[in-house]
Amino acid sequence: MTALPKQMKLGLYATATGGHVAGWRHPDAYADMGANLRRCIEMAQLAEDACFDFLFLADSQAMRGSDWDVLSRGSTRYVGQFEPLTLLASLAAVTEHIGLVATANTTYEEPYSLARRFASVDLLSSGRAGWNLVTSSNEEEAHNFSAQSHMQHADRYRRAREFAEVVLGLWQSWDADAFPRDKARGRFFEPSRMHLLNHQGEFFRVRGPLNVPPSPQSHPVVAQAGASEPGKALAAATADIIFSLLGEFDAARAYYADVKARLPRHGRTPDDLLILPGINIFVAATEAEAQAKQAAVQGLVDPVVGRSFLEMMLGASLGSHPDDGPLPELPPTNANTSMRQKVVDVAREQNLTIRDLYMRMTDKDTFTVVGTPAQVVDQMELRFHGGAADGFVIMPSFFPNSLRDVVEQILPELRRRGLFRTSYEGRTLRENLGLRSIARPALLA
Amino acid sequence: MTALPKQMKLGLYATATGGHVAGWRHPDAYADMGANLRRCIEMAQLAEDACFDFLFLADSQAMRGSDWDVLSRGSTRYVGQFEPLTLLASLAAVTEHIGLVATANTTYEEPYSLARRFASVDLLSSGRAGWNLVTSSNEEEAHNFSAQSHMQHADRYRRAREFAEVVLGLWQSWDADAFPRDKARGRFFEPSRMHLLNHQGEFFRVRGPLNVPPSPQSHPVVAQAGASEPGKALAAATADIIFSLLGEFDAARAYYADVKARLPRHGRTPDDLLILPGINIFVAATEAEAQAKQAAVQGLVDPVVGRSFLEMMLGASLGSHPDDGPLPELPPTNANTSMRQKVVDVAREQNLTIRDLYMRMTDKDTFTVVGTPAQVVDQMELRFHGGAADGFVIMPSFFPNSLRDVVEQILPELRRRGLFRTSYEGRTLRENLGLRSIARPALLA
Repeated sequence: MTALPKQMKLGLYATATGGHVAGWRHPDAYADMGANLRRCIEMAQLAEDACFDFLFLADSQAMRGSDWDVLSRGSTRYVGQFEPLTLLASLAAVTEHIGLVATANTTYEEPYSLARRFASVDLLSSGRAGWNLVTSSNEEEAHNFSAQSHMQHADRYRRAREFAEVVLGLWQSWDADAFPRDKARGRFFEPSRMHLLNHQGEFFRVRGPLNVPPSPQSHPVVAQAGASEPGKALAAATADIIFSLLGEFDAARAYYADVKARLPRHGRTPDDLLILPGINIFVAATEAEAQAKQAAVQGLVDPVVGRSFLEMMLGASLGSHPDDGPLPELPPTNANTSMRQKVVDVAREQNLTIRDLYMRMTDKDTFTVVGTPAQVVDQMELRFHGGAADGFVIMPSFFPNSLRDVVEQILPELRRRGLFRTSYEGRTLRENLGLRSIARPALLA
Repeated sequence: MTALPKQMKLGLYATATGGHVAGWRHPDAYADMGANLRRCIEMAQLAEDACFDFLFLADSQAMRGSDWDVLSRGSTRYVGQFEPLTLLASLAAVTEHIGLVATANTTYEEPYSLARRFASVDLLSSGRAGWNLVTSSNEEEAHNFSAQSHMQHADRYRRAREFAEVVLGLWQSWDADAFPRDKARGRFFEPSRMHLLNHQGEFFRVRGPLNVPPSPQSHPVVAQAGASEPGKALAAATADIIFSLLGEFDAARAYYADVKARLPRHGRTPDDLLILPGINIFVAATEAEAQAKQAAVQGLVDPVVGRSFLEMMLGASLGSHPDDGPLPELPPTNANTSMRQKVVDVAREQNLTIRDLYMRMTDKDTFTVVGTPAQVVDQMELRFHGGAADGFVIMPSFFPNSLRDVVEQILPELRRRGLFRTSYEGRTLRENLGLRSIARPALLA
C-alpha cells in the first residue's frame, strides 16, 4: 500500500434508541429503534452510505437494574431490544461494506457457541464482523444464569483471558483454502487444511474444529473496552480495537500512550490496535443552535432516570444524598471499576453536585462536543493528531436526527480536511480498518 | 374462522447442501449452499413465493464424527456451514411471510441466552420464528463444551424438560401492550405488564424478565423431533410441531395416534400439535425419468460415506462386518434411540444388507417417493388423509433442482386437489400453521 495520509476510523454506536438516556423522548426520535428492523436497516444503510467503518451494538444479558419503576422510564438500560448478534445478521443481508460489531460477554457464555455465532456472522457478511469482548459488569446477569452471585473482577478476567484464547484458537480451525467442495474427487473439505484446537485449561476443555468455514477476513475483528489494569493487559494481547471513554485530553493521551506502549511485548506494533473513544456531538450551523439542540434533549431528562443512571455507572447506590449535594464517598464495587473512577475523577476535579454529574453522564460518555462543524472537528482533530485517538465511536443521542447531523455536517468538514474517507478502501472490516491480517498469531503467549 | 377443507402444512429442510449425502456432488448442485448467503436467500425466496409454511435448519455444535477422512467426503454432517439462528436472522431481513425454524439443543446452552436469541429472531421477522428443541445426540458435542462425557439419555430429557419450562416462561415476560414508549409520560414500558419468572429448579435458577419485547405472534413456535418415550411425552406437553421420520404407513399411523392421544391430558386438542414427517421426492413427467433422477444422485454415493452415515444413524460402529452382509447385533447406544430403532426395523423386516440399508438411508429419511406428480401426491394424500401426517417437511436431495422440482411439479398437483394454499392466510407463523394462540399456558403442569 502507498503511504496515504492517516485518516480517522469511525464507528457508530447503534444500541437501542441511541446513547442519551432521554433521547428516545425527543419528538423526532425513533423510540422503537431497538425493536423495529426497518428503522435499524435505514440507519445502517445511512451509515454505510457515509462510509462508517462499522456499527456497534452494546449488550447486556439482563436489564441493568431491579427497580422496575425506574427502568420503565428509559430505553438505554437494555430493557427491551433485539439481541445484538441476530440483529447484526439481519443487517448483514442488506448491507455490503459496513462492519458489524457486537458485544458478547465471556462470563456466562460457552466459547464454542460464541466463536461459532460470530464466525457465522462474519461469513454471512463476507468478512465484516467484530466481537467486543466484555466480562459481565452487573449483578443482574447472574440472576438469569443460575449463578449464586456476580463473579469477582479478578476471576472474570482470568476466565475472559482463557475464553479469548479458546475463541481465537477456534477461529484458526481452517486455512483459507480448506473447503474445495470438489465434486469430482468427492472432497468437501481438506483434512490437511484443518487445525484441531485441543484446548485444556482451567475453565474450558474444547477440542474443535469450529464447524463454520472461514470468512474472507479469516475471522472477526476483536474489540474491547476495558480500562482497568487487567482490561488493558488483555486488550494489548488480543484486541484490534479499544472503545474508550475519552474524558479530559491529558487523561485520554496518557491512556493512549499506556496501551500503545504495551503492544511490543506481544510482538505487535502501535498500528495493530486502534483506540476509538466514544463521542457525542451536537452540531448546527451556529454555536447557539447547537447548544439549543443539546438543551432540547437535556430538558427531557427525568431526574429519577438521571440519578439512577449515575448510580449504575458508579456501581453503587447514592442513598439519601440529595441531588444538589456533592458525590459522597462510595463503598468498593465489583462492577465496572474503570467507569466508576472516570466519573468520580470528573466530579472531584470540577466540584460537581450529583445533579450536575448525572446531567453530564446522560450520554454514557464523558466527551460531548457542542458547536459548529468547524468547532466540533477542531476538537476531534486535536485528539486525533494529539496522540489521544485513532478515530471515534459516534454516539448519537437519538435516531435518526443525531446521526443525520453527523453525516450531513461533520463528515463533509472531516473530508474537507482530508481526515475521513470518501469510499471504502477494502472488502472486509479488517481491510477498511487498515489492520494487518496475521495468520495463527500466538496472541496470548 | 370458517371451516375450510383442511390443507397440508409444508416445511422445507434447508440445512447445508440438502438432505442427501451425495447431493452436493450433483453437477447442478449448489455445493456451497451452507456458506453462501446469496444462495440461501434465493432458496428462501423461492420457498416463500411457493407459500411454504416454514424453512427449517437442523444443527449440531460439532462435526458428527471424528474420522476426518470420512467427514471430509461429505457435506451433511455439519462439517462447515452457517450457524442456524444467525442465518435465519439474515433471511428474516429479506423475506416477509415464510416461517423460520431452527434447531437448538438444551444440553449445552443456557435457557436465558437461547430464549433471548429466538425471541429476537421472532421480533426481527415480525412473528415468524420457531425453535426445534433437541437434546444433544452425539459424543462430539461434549468435546467442545468442557464435558467429561456425553450426558445420559434420561438426564438429558430431565434437563430438557426444565429448560423448556424456563424458555416458555421467559417468553411470557411481556404482555402484548407492555411497551407503549410514551414520550410525553416518559414511560418506555409498563411495569404492570411485565412478568418475572423467578424460576428455581434442579438445573436452573432464572429470574427474568427477558429483555426482548414480544413479537406479533407473542413468542416462537416450538418444534420437536423426539420419538423415544420421554421425547413423545415432552412433545405432547410443549410442542406445536413434531418433525417425524415417517417410515412405513402402519408405523407412521400408530405414532400419529399415540402422540395425538397424549394431548388431552395437557389440556390440548389434537389440532394443537402438528405432525410433519420428512419426505424426499424425486419427481418427473414420467416414472422412468423420476427413477433416473434418483439413480443419478444415488450413483454419486461414496461407499465410505454411506456406511459411515449409517453408523451415525445407528450410534454404533459396524466394525468389520462387510457391506454385502446383514446388519449385526448392536451394543446399546446413548445416541438417538428412536432413529436407531427405525433403521433396525427396516433392515430386519426387509432382510437388507448393510449396503442396501445405507443406500436407503442416504436421505436422512425413510420415506422417499419417486414418480410422476400424481403418483407422489397420491402417496402424500394417503398419509395425510390416512391419519399419519398433518403435512410434510420436504427434504430436497440438493439445491436448487430438488426444490424447484417440488415447487414446479408437486405443488400444482397438491393445489389442483385443494390440498395446499395459494396464498398465506395470516401474518405470523403461528397463524399460517393454524395454531391457537394461548396466553401463559401451564404447559408443563
